[in-house]
Amino acid sequence: MEKIKAVSYGVGNIGRDIARFMVDKGVIITGAIDVKNVGKDLGDVIGIGRKLNVEISDKADEVLSRTAADIALIAVATSMEKIYPHVKRCLEAGLNVITTSEEASYPWTSSPAIAAKLDRIAKENGGTVTGSGMQDVFWANLITTLTGAAHRIESIEGRTSINMDELGPMVAEFYAVGKKADDIYKMIEKNEKLPLGDEVVCLRMDLENQISDLGLTAKTITESVKPIILDHDLPSKAFNKDIPAGDVTGLDNTIVIDTVEGILFKATQTAKVYEKGEQDINEWIIKGEPTIHMRNDNPPTLLGTSSQIVNRIPDVINARPGYVTIDELPKLVCKIRSLEHYLNT
Amino acid sequence: MEKIKAVSYGVGNIGRDIARFMVDKGVIITGAIDVKNVGKDLGDVIGIGRKLNVEISDKADEVLSRTAADIALIAVATSMEKIYPHVKRCLEAGLNVITTSEEASYPWTSSPAIAAKLDRIAKENGGTVTGSGMQDVFWANLITTLTGAAHRIESIEGRTSINMDELGPMVAEFYAVGKKADDIYKMIEKNEKLPLGDEVVCLRMDLENQISDLGLTAKTITESVKPIILDHDLPSKAFNKDIPAGDVTGLDNTIVIDTVEGILFKATQTAKVYEKGEQDINEWIIKGEPTIHMRNDNPPTLLGTSSQIVNRIPDVINARPGYVTIDELPKLVCKIRSLEHYLNT
Repeated sequence: MEKIKAVSYGVGNIGRDIARFMVDKGVIITGAIDVKNVGKDLGDVIGIGRKLNVEISDKADEVLSRTAADIALIAVATSMEKIYPHVKRCLEAGLNVITTSEEASYPWTSSPAIAAKLDRIAKENGGTVTGSGMQDVFWANLITTLTGAAHRIESIEGRTSINMDELGPMVAEFYAVGKKADDIYKMIEKNEKLPLGDEVVCLRMDLENQISDLGLTAKTITESVKPIILDHDLPSKAFNKDIPAGDVTGLDNTIVIDTVEGILFKATQTAKVYEKGEQDINEWIIKGEPTIHMRNDNPPTLLGTSSQIVNRIPDVINARPGYVTIDELPKLVCKIRSLEHYLNT
Repeated sequence: MEKIKAVSYGVGNIGRDIARFMVDKGVIITGAIDVKNVGKDLGDVIGIGRKLNVEISDKADEVLSRTAADIALIAVATSMEKIYPHVKRCLEAGLNVITTSEEASYPWTSSPAIAAKLDRIAKENGGTVTGSGMQDVFWANLITTLTGAAHRIESIEGRTSINMDELGPMVAEFYAVGKKADDIYKMIEKNEKLPLGDEVVCLRMDLENQISDLGLTAKTITESVKPIILDHDLPSKAFNKDIPAGDVTGLDNTIVIDTVEGILFKATQTAKVYEKGEQDINEWIIKGEPTIHMRNDNPPTLLGTSSQIVNRIPDVINARPGYVTIDELPKLVCKIRSLEHYLNT
């Protein structure tokens, strides 16, 4: 049985774990692309204690043209707009693609033109493109699996929390950490886009994935944002200083999607610098007959993203050509054996 | 599109909810079988405020011979031995079967001869037989879905708790509620079978479902039991009296399955009369990289069983002929529309 060959496209925080997990599960990494660590051996960069004889390069087209591979693992950005050129060149080089881009997990209503273009390019080249990550299990498939125990659903409501001190200063800035409260309230009043980057999508795609998986149709989508402000100073690892009392320590982003069928979907993502003792949260409730609760204490936001991406590799290679979202893919389970064992013959 | 036709086989506590949910979801009930309420209209017995013009009968063969139906919903017993004649006659009458029998959800190692016989009868008659219920989502598929976020698994460990006061005196007696502690300790010493009926299987099948779904192979299965004893009297609704301090208020049943692949599966089911404020529990941990926690507060043990059985109906009708366990069926989700919409054409 032939091993799966892959290109590591993006070898940052997440990309490193993805590459390490691929090596563990018998994937041959034939190319590595990043703008950092250029010229270094991938094995050294991901810290597995041995060389992989794959040099990191910032010349993506060159790597793709000289590299035979089944799939590219793209971990470079969150929005469809930003990942588009990277996905396009991989598809055109004849590879399948899986990406950690949050928006990519259901781009049909937020970026329909880009999604349609990638769908066409994928079909022309016989490849599949899919977005996965933390959302695959924790924010989409666990919840739709849970609906299997419901006879009738009134609403599906979720709450997640992520720690800006863990995700670093770039992400923390998107979420307005350390900004003056007045400035943020003014932005909200003027209806300016929050979070502050165009990068962060905050559970919208995950609700849309759920809606698609249940065969429902979204009617209205509303987003709202609320700054989080404390009455005491808060030490921040990401900024290496205290955030003064009264300044913003993060945001609550809420997405509400109503469906034609009358079932309401609602989720709030808290993205903030944690106080001592706070942990990540993933908590959902299905209200209906019966009402069902589910929570994950301290969900593994970083390692879980990489595990899910790597466990999805055979599913993406097996899938039909085109843009295929996770709600169309088989149930995601841990692939215990070397990944080539899960390929359709 | 033609409606699905079904026979309600067993119209007790669970069977009543199953019938009510079927009516809600557009299933035509063409026959009803039970030894109680014989001669009464099914609509009256399940309390939907209207007649269904289906008379409950205790003559199963007669009902099946004069009734055209796609599937029988069997909710009469827990062990394969006890449900065998009921399943057999439904298959021979040309129906598919779904049953709440706990053992039926994975009978291949506990009752291999009966499972093989039913598999053969099902194939000869072009029907499918499946066991589902609370275990489908909460004790099997949620957990295997959760493994999709794990790169490497050392063990999967679960804990569930059910309230004997809710499930009634018959079930409570199986779990030794109200017995003298010394008698139970003697039984354990002599290796006598506990729980006291041959009815209750306690999570073994659910672990076996998980093992099958992950493509693993069970090596050793061990079961152990521990009586639960309090130092104060405990009022019991099921027995309508206090259980004295020092007597048994229930059992902890633990199943441990080791696999050829070295992944350990372990689950404890607590079945006892609850103290004030205690609730049902469903809590699992996947130990590995990363470690993952999941819990359902106050899981809907009774209504959830019926919902899952009814949501499974189209999957069972769509499945290949033979004995098909839930790990082979598609992901179970809430069927929002009338059930015939989910049939393969």
